[in-house]
Amino acid sequence: MTDTTADDALPPLVGPVEVVGTGLIGTSIALVCRRLGIDVVLRDTSAKHVRTATGLGAGRVATGVDRPQLVVVAVPPAAIAETVVEALQRTDAVVTDVGSVKSAPLAAVARQVSSADLARYVGSHPMAGSERSGPLAASAALFDGRPWAITPHAGAGAAAVGLVESLVVECGAAPLRMDPAEHDRAVARISHLPHLAAVLVAGRLAAAPAEHLALSGQGVRDVTRVAASDPALWQQILEANSDAVLDLLGEVRADLDALMAAVSAAPSGHGGPDLVDILARGNAGTAAIPGKHGGPARPTRSVFVSVPDHPGELARLFGDAGEIGVNIEDVHIDHDPGRPVGLTELVVEKGRAEHLLAALESRGWTTHR
Amino acid sequence: MTDTTADDALPPLVGPVEVVGTGLIGTSIALVCRRLGIDVVLRDTSAKHVRTATGLGAGRVATGVDRPQLVVVAVPPAAIAETVVEALQRTDAVVTDVGSVKSAPLAAVARQVSSADLARYVGSHPMAGSERSGPLAASAALFDGRPWAITPHAGAGAAAVGLVESLVVECGAAPLRMDPAEHDRAVARISHLPHLAAVLVAGRLAAAPAEHLALSGQGVRDVTRVAASDPALWQQILEANSDAVLDLLGEVRADLDALMAAVSAAPSGHGGPDLVDILARGNAGTAAIPGKHGGPARPTRSVFVSVPDHPGELARLFGDAGEIGVNIEDVHIDHDPGRPVGLTELVVEKGRAEHLLAALESRGWTTHR
Repeated sequence: MTDTTADDALPPLVGPVEVVGTGLIGTSIALVCRRLGIDVVLRDTSAKHVRTATGLGAGRVATGVDRPQLVVVAVPPAAIAETVVEALQRTDAVVTDVGSVKSAPLAAVARQVSSADLARYVGSHPMAGSERSGPLAASAALFDGRPWAITPHAGAGAAAVGLVESLVVECGAAPLRMDPAEHDRAVARISHLPHLAAVLVAGRLAAAPAEHLALSGQGVRDVTRVAASDPALWQQILEANSDAVLDLLGEVRADLDALMAAVSAAPSGHGGPDLVDILARGNAGTAAIPGKHGGPARPTRSVFVSVPDHPGELARLFGDAGEIGVNIEDVHIDHDPGRPVGLTELVVEKGRAEHLLAALESRGWTTHR
Repeated sequence: MTDTTADDALPPLVGPVEVVGTGLIGTSIALVCRRLGIDVVLRDTSAKHVRTATGLGAGRVATGVDRPQLVVVAVPPAAIAETVVEALQRTDAVVTDVGSVKSAPLAAVARQVSSADLARYVGSHPMAGSERSGPLAASAALFDGRPWAITPHAGAGAAAVGLVESLVVECGAAPLRMDPAEHDRAVARISHLPHLAAVLVAGRLAAAPAEHLALSGQGVRDVTRVAASDPALWQQILEANSDAVLDLLGEVRADLDALMAAVSAAPSGHGGPDLVDILARGNAGTAAIPGKHGGPARPTRSVFVSVPDHPGELARLFGDAGEIGVNIEDVHIDHDPGRPVGLTELVVEKGRAEHLLAALESRGWTTHR
């Protein structure tokens, strides 16, 4: 895997850029290019989406005599391969797609075009987005600070790869070059598996007794949050990455069997060590996730503050924290039945926590450690 | 299940209250009682913890002639039963414990005391806490707005149950009366299962290739956050609730098998409907979790704002949001490699989102929908 390349070694992105598929991702890329003064041509099977995107200032409709420098294919997963093939055959542009699975579309494209045409195709994948979709949800800031994988096949031209990296850098993202199959294994692990774990846990809540749900705290909310995404989209993603996903699910099923055996043996005193090992591996896993902005994860600590639940109070808290000068790494606002007072959790660098607590208390906040 | 009882029907909590186990929960309860002017007696096998707790103003050491009204047992799970038995035999107080599993300790206590003594025992469980532990982490605000289950057995005296409910109300929590076995099934579902799902996903990260981890986004962080908890504590919790946990894990394993079959069949076009059903059930599950402060979950929407990463900027954002007058339901601050600009996600009531966005944009914020 290669990280960023020096910007002056990359081919400049001058346009025109053609965006096929004016949904969230395509329109956001178009908006970045427009802000750079690049000519953007928009295409979509939905005329309504194109009109919305042009109305947002994301670009203009095709004239038929356009000659794009780069084509960005941003269509739903099941349509990616055919759209890439069409673009490679219709233009002499570099073509990239932004789908969340790379190997299967690449294989399908490779079966349908010459190796000369294939040299102009370089898949990529921005790790960005939200539960929102469509052109109205788009923003030029969508990719700021995000990882964006670039997954060239063996026969991709170096200039083509460089041009896609230019796009990534102009979008404010961090380019990460990876083999397509390795990318699919990576997203199976850090995106698709967590999503499916959330779905399995949420599946046990759907028909749960109300008195069970009444005890819900922040933990179950955090674990299940991503399960609120669009089922039709995820069905296409999982279909396209079924091999890598099944490999990981198989590993998890084996881990689950070991976990069940350890829990089952625990009351007799024989499962204890196995269970502690499994739980400790969970600790190690959370510590392995990179910290903010790519650096090693600095140890953090949570401080809790009672905040009355109406507009302005949270601002007052953050205003005070800002004056105090302690950077807040993360925030959780608790959702619980009972009084209309919420407990806000501020995650700060461990060495700054005591200072923040003392300063907040001196400003009248009710805190707890 | 019964919700709150009218406060004037509850026996008043006048003290003395004896707290056995001056960790996070015990010391926090003690601090609530001290603020109410109630005499609090502290006991712990660790003299150091008792000294810290008394130093925090949480109470005083036992004199030998104390006659508590209520004993709160707040010791680690494996020590609960023996400590409850000791308290029932040493005093004529109502005795409660605050452990996260109820049936097993109750059964052990019932085997060791007379039914007259057993009538004074009423288990309970505050749904509160954090990864922090020990008396220094304690706060009288720990229970504000939280659910707190009260789990009397069939032979518990009504006045005893009422006194425990008084404690819960004084701590600012929402009392929820439940059968002990039903409680254990409930926490297996909304606390232990999510925890184990997080552990299983995190377990796949612990030895993962660095280039896989480099693509991590908010989803995997949310799903695995709770897996950073103390393995020794969780081993005791799972041991004590092994039946209910195994039942749920068995259901999840069956769901996992169905999921694997659906993913495996998907590329041939035959798994599609099954897979969409499973994913849709995940949607339904997230919608089933109660919203803030016990009301039905109002539909929310996320708005995203680019915020430079230094002290004060987040305050400026919340200050503006406060002035704009839109209540922020939840916040996520993204942790990603790349530029030092973070994307902050504000979750607001759906109908207020556009107003917030327009107003933030007019104040110069870079937003996206």
